[in-house]
Amino acid sequence: MKLVCLTLVLGALSSFSASALEALPKDVPTPADNPKTAIKVELGKALYFDPRLSIDGTVSCNSCHNVMASGEDNRPVSVGVNGQRGGRSAPTVWNSGHNTVQFWDGRAASLEDQAKGPLTNPIEMGMPNHDAVMARVKQLPGYVEMFKKAFPKDKEPVTIDNLAKAIATFERTLNTPDSAFDLYKRGNKKAMSAQAIRGMKLVEEIGCTACHTGKNFNGEGLKMGEGNYQLFPQAPGSKFDKQYNLTADLGRYEVTKNPEDKHKWRVPTWRNVALTAPYFHNGSVKTLDEAVRVMGKTQLDMDLSEDQVGDIVAFLNSLTGKLPKIVAPQLPMMAGGTLTPEK
Amino acid sequence: MKLVCLTLVLGALSSFSASALEALPKDVPTPADNPKTAIKVELGKALYFDPRLSIDGTVSCNSCHNVMASGEDNRPVSVGVNGQRGGRSAPTVWNSGHNTVQFWDGRAASLEDQAKGPLTNPIEMGMPNHDAVMARVKQLPGYVEMFKKAFPKDKEPVTIDNLAKAIATFERTLNTPDSAFDLYKRGNKKAMSAQAIRGMKLVEEIGCTACHTGKNFNGEGLKMGEGNYQLFPQAPGSKFDKQYNLTADLGRYEVTKNPEDKHKWRVPTWRNVALTAPYFHNGSVKTLDEAVRVMGKTQLDMDLSEDQVGDIVAFLNSLTGKLPKIVAPQLPMMAGGTLTPEK
Repeated sequence: MKLVCLTLVLGALSSFSASALEALPKDVPTPADNPKTAIKVELGKALYFDPRLSIDGTVSCNSCHNVMASGEDNRPVSVGVNGQRGGRSAPTVWNSGHNTVQFWDGRAASLEDQAKGPLTNPIEMGMPNHDAVMARVKQLPGYVEMFKKAFPKDKEPVTIDNLAKAIATFERTLNTPDSAFDLYKRGNKKAMSAQAIRGMKLVEEIGCTACHTGKNFNGEGLKMGEGNYQLFPQAPGSKFDKQYNLTADLGRYEVTKNPEDKHKWRVPTWRNVALTAPYFHNGSVKTLDEAVRVMGKTQLDMDLSEDQVGDIVAFLNSLTGKLPKIVAPQLPMMAGGTLTPEK
Repeated sequence: MKLVCLTLVLGALSSFSASALEALPKDVPTPADNPKTAIKVELGKALYFDPRLSIDGTVSCNSCHNVMASGEDNRPVSVGVNGQRGGRSAPTVWNSGHNTVQFWDGRAASLEDQAKGPLTNPIEMGMPNHDAVMARVKQLPGYVEMFKKAFPKDKEPVTIDNLAKAIATFERTLNTPDSAFDLYKRGNKKAMSAQAIRGMKLVEEIGCTACHTGKNFNGEGLKMGEGNYQLFPQAPGSKFDKQYNLTADLGRYEVTKNPEDKHKWRVPTWRNVALTAPYFHNGSVKTLDEAVRVMGKTQLDMDLSEDQVGDIVAFLNSLTGKLPKIVAPQLPMMAGGTLTPEK
């Protein structure tokens, strides 16, 4: 099994050259039916930060995908309404417009699809259904006006699909260009340290970039099933499997119920990975160096030396990009009343 | 009892002229030992938005005092760590630099004192003590650097007192000038509607402004005990006492244990009151018009007509100010690790 998997990895590796590691492009792929407009970004931003989209008015998209920080919450698993814990660690929203699928198990094909999920997840934002979400939004004249402007051709613009489109459009602005790696790839050979450059060469040599490839280092271009999925652990049976409880969650199998999808996961991005501890789908690994050791062993069956770990961590640190400046939205308010009163 | 209280109110009223209602001044009173600097505002803003100051990394100052909205959370009572509910409704942070005391019961004399409270409140941010808060902050080089710059004369700048000073300095920027009322008071007689002007005259005539006086409409200048406190209900025994459970909480008495302080409360601001439903210390009243009816009955023993209620609500709506533009901070991060890992 180990040999077969490694052969697969090395086979995949051989089809990629060093150029598979790409600088982050300026343009984010945009669906034809959801073009970017300034008003749509503004609307999406307000909705993204609005805790009133959760049942008790405490959880917004930004609660778990914090754009003032790592694009997630730096917790093992997130906390939803009423202190409930989720089952998997929140992925970062940074550069998520460059993902080919969304969620750890790829159960959403687009940011638009993804945005609808947490709203009605009982342990996340806890709304009973999308109609209840939109009933709240419709009570706020400020939102109604923004929806009209953002979707001027729609007879009934205040819909869950348009809410998702607006949030996705905002999210496509959440990119972190100009990491040291990006500057290096664009010609500034002093942007990366010698150690980081050693790490960059190492991840290509030993095979990490067989999966962590493409502009977002998330396996774009790999076609495993319908998306960029990969087995994790690839080489099962290491001490880490038990130590970090890596195999309890069956991953994409939970979506497809196809036995071949057991323990398959979307390849997560490496961009800003230095900011997104704790690591893995269950957030069980607290530090980046340990995450590198785990990946070396579980995916490549290698016991990386501490020098190798250090070099790879230095490279991964060079993928921390420049966070965009975000002006906090002013959320549409209801004069003299409130959307989320509790008894 | 009713007569005595009303006499008190009317007595207080007689000492205030119409000019007791003031436009919001540009300058916020600043303590001599905590002058405002740009770097201190920046540091305070980052701390204000940082959920890692709570035990599980989920609750920031902004969670309950949301500066993207009403300066509070529009809930009856706030939700702290692990879904716990607080005992009183969060006061708005807007214009809180103009308050003479902080908290509903005035138990903090300054914003600096206030800022330290929620951090270690077990049902709010839940940190075990202030040392634990500062131990986290000290792990983030970005914060350490900001503290050094913000408090350049201090040998050990990363302290809980300086954290509180920075947050308070940021909060003193959170003011909402240029409400319709402010424009009106500054000479634009068209800024307020005829109904709002009727309401303004009415609140002075019937005695509301005996307490809701001064630039923040919160009783500044009234000296009842050490601060601007007032009995609520003033005229007990109305149907509202039971309906909205107004007397269960003993208010300032819980701080002083002085029987004379039973049911005494800081006079809350009227500024932006149209945005801060639900109302009162327990958040029991859902709408502003009902809050006006309750106040008329409990404080002035008056059954206000619906026309009177409408006029007063129109006036209160004219006190909604202009929210300042806030650029979201970029929180100092820890490379390759996290402050708030849970098992």
